[in-house]
Amino acid sequence: MSTRARGRAADEIRPVTITTNYTRHAEGSVLVEFGHTKVLCTATVETGVPRFLKGKGQGWVTAEYGMLPRSTHSRMQREAAKGKQGGRTMEIQRLIARSLRAAVDLKALGEHTITVDCDVIQADGGTRTAAITGACVALANALQWMREKGVIAANPLKTLVAAVSVGIVDGLAVTDLEYTEDAAAETDMNVVMTAEGKMIEVQGTAEGEPFSHEELLAMLALARQSIDELVEHQRRAIAG
Amino acid sequence: MSTRARGRAADEIRPVTITTNYTRHAEGSVLVEFGHTKVLCTATVETGVPRFLKGKGQGWVTAEYGMLPRSTHSRMQREAAKGKQGGRTMEIQRLIARSLRAAVDLKALGEHTITVDCDVIQADGGTRTAAITGACVALANALQWMREKGVIAANPLKTLVAAVSVGIVDGLAVTDLEYTEDAAAETDMNVVMTAEGKMIEVQGTAEGEPFSHEELLAMLALARQSIDELVEHQRRAIAG
Amino acid sequence: MSTRARGRAADEIRPVTITTNYTRHAEGSVLVEFGHTKVLCTATVETGVPRFLKGKGQGWVTAEYGMLPRSTHSRMQREAAKGKQGGRTMEIQRLIARSLRAAVDLKALGEHTITVDCDVIQADGGTRTAAITGACVALANALQWMREKGVIAANPLKTLVAAVSVGIVDGLAVTDLEYTEDAAAETDMNVVMTAEGKMIEVQGTAEGEPFSHEELLAMLALARQSIDELVEHQRRAIAG
Amino acid sequence: MSTRARGRAADEIRPVTITTNYTRHAEGSVLVEFGHTKVLCTATVETGVPRFLKGKGQGWVTAEYGMLPRSTHSRMQREAAKGKQGGRTMEIQRLIARSLRAAVDLKALGEHTITVDCDVIQADGGTRTAAITGACVALANALQWMREKGVIAANPLKTLVAAVSVGIVDGLAVTDLEYTEDAAAETDMNVVMTAEGKMIEVQGTAEGEPFSHEELLAMLALARQSIDELVEHQRRAIAG
Amino acid sequence: MSTRARGRAADEIRPVTITTNYTRHAEGSVLVEFGHTKVLCTATVETGVPRFLKGKGQGWVTAEYGMLPRSTHSRMQREAAKGKQGGRTMEIQRLIARSLRAAVDLKALGEHTITVDCDVIQADGGTRTAAITGACVALANALQWMREKGVIAANPLKTLVAAVSVGIVDGLAVTDLEYTEDAAAETDMNVVMTAEGKMIEVQGTAEGEPFSHEELLAMLALARQSIDELVEHQRRAIAG
Amino acid sequence: MSTRARGRAADEIRPVTITTNYTRHAEGSVLVEFGHTKVLCTATVETGVPRFLKGKGQGWVTAEYGMLPRSTHSRMQREAAKGKQGGRTMEIQRLIARSLRAAVDLKALGEHTITVDCDVIQADGGTRTAAITGACVALANALQWMREKGVIAANPLKTLVAAVSVGIVDGLAVTDLEYTEDAAAETDMNVVMTAEGKMIEVQGTAEGEPFSHEELLAMLALARQSIDELVEHQRRAIAG
Repeated sequence: MSTRARGRAADEIRPVTITTNYTRHAEGSVLVEFGHTKVLCTATVETGVPRFLKGKGQGWVTAEYGMLPRSTHSRMQREAAKGKQGGRTMEIQRLIARSLRAAVDLKALGEHTITVDCDVIQADGGTRTAAITGACVALANALQWMREKGVIAANPLKTLVAAVSVGIVDGLAVTDLEYTEDAAAETDMNVVMTAEGKMIEVQGTAEGEPFSHEELLAMLALARQSIDELVEHQRRAIAG
Repeated sequence: MSTRARGRAADEIRPVTITTNYTRHAEGSVLVEFGHTKVLCTATVETGVPRFLKGKGQGWVTAEYGMLPRSTHSRMQREAAKGKQGGRTMEIQRLIARSLRAAVDLKALGEHTITVDCDVIQADGGTRTAAITGACVALANALQWMREKGVIAANPLKTLVAAVSVGIVDGLAVTDLEYTEDAAAETDMNVVMTAEGKMIEVQGTAEGEPFSHEELLAMLALARQSIDELVEHQRRAIAG
Repeated sequence: MSTRARGRAADEIRPVTITTNYTRHAEGSVLVEFGHTKVLCTATVETGVPRFLKGKGQGWVTAEYGMLPRSTHSRMQREAAKGKQGGRTMEIQRLIARSLRAAVDLKALGEHTITVDCDVIQADGGTRTAAITGACVALANALQWMREKGVIAANPLKTLVAAVSVGIVDGLAVTDLEYTEDAAAETDMNVVMTAEGKMIEVQGTAEGEPFSHEELLAMLALARQSIDELVEHQRRAIAG
Repeated sequence: MSTRARGRAADEIRPVTITTNYTRHAEGSVLVEFGHTKVLCTATVETGVPRFLKGKGQGWVTAEYGMLPRSTHSRMQREAAKGKQGGRTMEIQRLIARSLRAAVDLKALGEHTITVDCDVIQADGGTRTAAITGACVALANALQWMREKGVIAANPLKTLVAAVSVGIVDGLAVTDLEYTEDAAAETDMNVVMTAEGKMIEVQGTAEGEPFSHEELLAMLALARQSIDELVEHQRRAIAG
Repeated sequence: MSTRARGRAADEIRPVTITTNYTRHAEGSVLVEFGHTKVLCTATVETGVPRFLKGKGQGWVTAEYGMLPRSTHSRMQREAAKGKQGGRTMEIQRLIARSLRAAVDLKALGEHTITVDCDVIQADGGTRTAAITGACVALANALQWMREKGVIAANPLKTLVAAVSVGIVDGLAVTDLEYTEDAAAETDMNVVMTAEGKMIEVQGTAEGEPFSHEELLAMLALARQSIDELVEHQRRAIAG
Repeated sequence: MSTRARGRAADEIRPVTITTNYTRHAEGSVLVEFGHTKVLCTATVETGVPRFLKGKGQGWVTAEYGMLPRSTHSRMQREAAKGKQGGRTMEIQRLIARSLRAAVDLKALGEHTITVDCDVIQADGGTRTAAITGACVALANALQWMREKGVIAANPLKTLVAAVSVGIVDGLAVTDLEYTEDAAAETDMNVVMTAEGKMIEVQGTAEGEPFSHEELLAMLALARQSIDELVEHQRRAIAG
């Protein structure tokens, strides 16, 4: 792939928009856009914790993920109608939840549960990484709301986390894959990092050919750079 | 209730916005807003019909409905995670589908199925009536797309259908109930009509006290007036 | 349709039979027959209320509906075997439950739950309206049983509710549609009223052509007359 | 137990009634009563066979079983609402189906499937044995209907099968246990036999104490005698 | 069948191996082999009892059964993936549980629940009878563990229970059917007995032709003899 | 952690055993042991491919994963009884399947489907990596069986794949984590590689603290070394 769509450079992420207060009811509500990929992330604060944490003096952060049936090129069956969430959905919502928990001091959260719903309005590749990036902002807003309401004293947010998908396409490492690139990639890797550039999750998958150590390093370097940029977007969105 | 929120008159609907081409992939994609109620309606065109219609030389129109978990004041459990759609969801999607089919000449549609997904982004009362009103526009756009692609020759759309909820609140008939009114209503009636003012669906429910024949007539008159206004909004949206 | 089956007049309901104490175990047990439609309605009294009503000092009335697999012309799949209740079933049981609750002073019921099971033994149109009509008698019997046992002091039953389906068949408004009429109807409307003729539920659906205001009025007038007759049947059954 | 309820002798079955043509739509429809136990058995004839029998030139007989929620002393949860059939239900419907298949020449049935639905209207012990006894009559009626319609030439019914529950109560072998006896029995055995007294199914279970060879023989002798009587009831019902 | 596979006599069971402490974590863990049939039986001890036994001062013993998908000749669909346990599975696990409870003084067990999981590693007929035979040893080991831990004082095990399948193959009564015999049997009977030769469960099914009283007696006699041998194997395994 | 359990060095894998032909029916059947972790992997060959591959002239390899309820320290609920597979199960079986497909030339497989079932008999950490390592051997055996039967001409196996979990425990990179180490790890990374040391899957998760680039490199180096050793075990097992 000598040139990417719309002349994007290999290390260039798509235009990013993070709109806070997107809907009215949630304690945190963010529409995140990575190019044509649009995900609505809402954070809900509830008193109490799941049973396995009762009485441990800590809180919990969890996440759910869904795609609107026609967020994609062809319509997908509605999971509520099928009667179960697919493996991909479960895998993604577990990833989002782990990533968010890495950013939060659960002790400082007290016995509260924050659920972040990430619903894909429009998909064009990278929905899980956009979701993590937006969800972290919705979470930050919800924690801010808790402090304003006096529910918690200190801010449990230890850092920001953001995510990007990188891959090897036509032998070249590129960042923030859009749908057509994702479909063509030999390797696809989702990386979640903190604002400090430390790693939370690294999930690399050889779609076609196995990848080499050098390719891995190239992808990680791209991810680091892109996540730095995404964290800037997050900071501006939170600052409002 | 001597005055409604924001000084609305008894026969005054909330501000209505109908945005077409809201998302990229669907053949018809509409965001409909009745005040703070926002529903994304996407129409998907597929070749073929359900098994019970095979070989009958006609098409089919169906609908699905869902609410994002935090579209409401407090978070609702995600139906995909619960593993089933609730009774209210099923009731609403059956209503939307019947209403849309009343607007379409299924023979002229040929052996195609159009599925309209109505997903509530934000709820403030009247989600099902907003959904029907927006879904009809998404359907019209999808049929337009089919004609432009040469898939069908004539337009199968016989008329426009729109819907409004009317009710008796504090003894007074009012139109287009928002959430707080809906919760306080003695009677709630959803009315679906054609552009010509003929009735497709009338569903009146006494929430508190049974209602009289006179109250029914008053609600129907309001509904007729409001639906005339909604059809104007639909026409402008379709004209683009 | 110049003449109805078996020479029935347009405003004539089918022969109605309401048999109380039909089975032994339930606190109220009624077999209701509208012509060939036969529904067994049993009312079960249990101590306690659903979680959302705990501690509110009131009771609850709910309903479930089912059809025996071969109550119909061709066999329907058993919902227990399918693993879920269909949309039509849920819609009907929600309608029955709302209708019954409109007849009961839930405060006077105290913290008890009454569940009315409506199981269709044989179907020939109008199963939901027969079910509501029979269920109200089963409910009255169960409340009578509660008073005899000293469980409650006053009778929580505020009125009787009965239901009928009316429709437009071949351009003519007719009452209490049997299966073949129901299948041929342009419009089908289910009406639930109190003994005083006030409305609890009105659910009109255009099956073929939209219906006019005049047709609605004609159907409502028929419904009123038929429900008056049904309430007489209920009264005689309760008087025993 | 020196005396049984209503003075029944140890070897005396309850009053048996077998009403054919109980409902209108099914090809065979039987209400069977063993004392207060009442089961509606309907046989449905359909063209074709399950996938595993396709092209083998034979038919199939299957059965389903259900209890109306308030057929019992206290209300049971509706299996359709729970979303699955319990182990007891599955066990019983498998038993009914095997028993019926033992009575039929599946080759002579041709590629047809007969489904017998056994729904318990009122339960007082012995619902599965009453169901088998009634289901066999419904099956015989359905086969008769097939011959009258010219669908099959010869009668595939090889024999009649009937069933009874026998048990050891207070050390004494008794037949056709009613509910209170069933609950008190040390051993409960369901026996299915042909009209010729050969065994189709024998299912004995020690509820309290293990049972001896002698007790087994005593129970089998009682079962043989009772089944002879039940077959007489079946013959009279079929002769009509 | 003049000769059985590998020259087995009609009254000869397959080679039996009972290996205790087969896995590390369970309180009782047994691999039981009846010829090529291999079942892993693990007993888990937990504090507390199911809700219906709360406060009754007794314990509970239950069982679950499963087959690994490729324990059989052709692969069976995984029940966890299908989303439900089939009727055969439920029937078998109910049988195992009832059989084990017949061996235990539930009062002496105190408020503990023992769950015995029987998972078929390799199937060659008789999986349910091997499971019962092995499960009883796992149960005995778990009870032994409870006594060593001082959780209970006396041994609640009243007796040993073992099981065998017997049948009529080519007109001859044979014991411990392997898969090919099971498939060819006219009658198949599973018998569960105590060490003293009293009966816990007798489940005989005519697969092809109904069976006679004499055949029943012949099968029971074989079962008695085989179960005596199986109890010897159990005793040696428990003695360690 | 200055010393690991049983004196294991940081770069030392647990004793590995790979037993082929472990059960009789499957085309490939392997018991793989990594220390106390034991997983039974069976490969089933079936003619035909899933619908989405019909007519594409290629085969498919898929996998399912399960844990016996008491393979773990405390009993887990049986997924078949719960009625669904959990997110962890789905994630693991998708990982196994992707890893195996990376080793196979699906064109050379022809229109066949190979399903590898990985069932955990005993768990002590690393069940998914043991499963992949054993599953690849079961797959190789099944492909060998296909060639011997003349079903395929060339061997579709392009390479061997094996997997290991590595992690940071007490600040130190260690390989092949056992359960107690896994629970204590700051970071856990599952690595799947080919025999040539190229990467198929890299899944690193910060359990406690985010991890650095250097830690990632240290873990990858360990993984490479361990996988080389595992491939040696695979080769010896396949050579038989």
